[in-house]
Amino acid sequence: MARLLIYLLLMAKGILYLIPVPISPDGRHSLSGDAIRISAGLDYYIAERAKTARRWLRYLHADIDFTKIEVEEIGKGEVDPDFLLQPLINGRDAGLVSEAGCPGVADPGALIVARAHQLLIKVVPLVGPSSILLALMASGFSGQNFQFHGYLPINSGELKQRLRYLDQQVRRDGGTHIFMDTPYRSVKTYEMILKTLPDDSHLALASDLTGESEFVASRSIAHWKRGELPPIDGKPVIFLLGQSGG
Amino acid sequence: MARLLIYLLLMAKGILYLIPVPISPDGRHSLSGDAIRISAGLDYYIAERAKTARRWLRYLHADIDFTKIEVEEIGKGEVDPDFLLQPLINGRDAGLVSEAGCPGVADPGALIVARAHQLLIKVVPLVGPSSILLALMASGFSGQNFQFHGYLPINSGELKQRLRYLDQQVRRDGGTHIFMDTPYRSVKTYEMILKTLPDDSHLALASDLTGESEFVASRSIAHWKRGELPPIDGKPVIFLLGQSGG
Repeated sequence: MARLLIYLLLMAKGILYLIPVPISPDGRHSLSGDAIRISAGLDYYIAERAKTARRWLRYLHADIDFTKIEVEEIGKGEVDPDFLLQPLINGRDAGLVSEAGCPGVADPGALIVARAHQLLIKVVPLVGPSSILLALMASGFSGQNFQFHGYLPINSGELKQRLRYLDQQVRRDGGTHIFMDTPYRSVKTYEMILKTLPDDSHLALASDLTGESEFVASRSIAHWKRGELPPIDGKPVIFLLGQSGG
Repeated sequence: MARLLIYLLLMAKGILYLIPVPISPDGRHSLSGDAIRISAGLDYYIAERAKTARRWLRYLHADIDFTKIEVEEIGKGEVDPDFLLQPLINGRDAGLVSEAGCPGVADPGALIVARAHQLLIKVVPLVGPSSILLALMASGFSGQNFQFHGYLPINSGELKQRLRYLDQQVRRDGGTHIFMDTPYRSVKTYEMILKTLPDDSHLALASDLTGESEFVASRSIAHWKRGELPPIDGKPVIFLLGQSGG
């Protein structure tokens, strides 16, 4: 009986679909069939920025009619999640979209998802591109044990210390450590890694994944030192430290 | 000049495409358009198990002709990666597939990817389902800082100690900790989590993602304790500990 009541309660509410968007301007085919089909049927979106969301929706569904679609912005914490989720309480489905890639991974969408769970709204994640996951697959490093750190410290001394610590971790348990950097700092971070880590450590780099200028390479520090600067200047980059071969 | 030579060297070789496969029997539409289109054009596959690979290929490409397609097995380390990669050295493209989900993440494919990088073979990761990433998106926990641990210890004492340690980590830095368990141990692990963690800690569960019986929920330990056993018995489960709302 209790189970039936919970079931009816869930059924009456809308579903919160987590809709990924491409991570490169030409990444249309990097979305799953499910994400494209389900987003075509939605008329309510919750987005980090409405402008970006509308641009992607038009790119994915050429014949979309924006007079029939509502897009609400999450903002930087000033918008009450309950206001955004009210339509779902009333039975309407919604799509949560991020600025790029998968909502809820390194974006403010997690707040909305968390509140949806509290309100017993059903959450359905859909498949799309994640630069973190694609970089991990392509690195040849361990996927049994990995950690994503976001951005490392900017300060040179702290960065060096952190890189040494992560290198020790890799040598101790073979796990993979993933971090990212902004376009204007990527070369500086790359050079600091080459200066700081021992020659036999391994570094993988990935940028513009799923895009036309996609770059992925995984080498020992000694090998990176012998080569030219990889094509990462002015691009956001995913860096990975790990043990080659998992 | 050196750059041109490297370019020609890379061009002459085949590309190693990392092709995801569904993570549920009815997950055809969980793959990206790119993964389906590119896999349709390949005639050489490197797979964890040839039988599973052939089954997925037939499911994804109904008109596939297996007399024209070669599938080689990675095995458990006894097959020389150089033997598997020789066709790529000779200019043939290949698809690397796993038993389920994304190759290279928690499977022996990482060995092949690592060797491909050493041989300067281009590696292209394609988008598909990863239960780890989908569970993270759907948890409402932080995606700025997360760690995947694979399986936790089986021994009750060690498991308890580990859960307590991860809970302290969450309270210290707000990161998300992800681990998985096998179908026959999932309920036991769930019960141990409820017994070990404080009432105000948060646990998210995900099973059969992208499948017909998909289950995702994220609640406080107190809330889980009040409810019935979630439908995880006999199913592989992804467990997440984290701070609700990132």
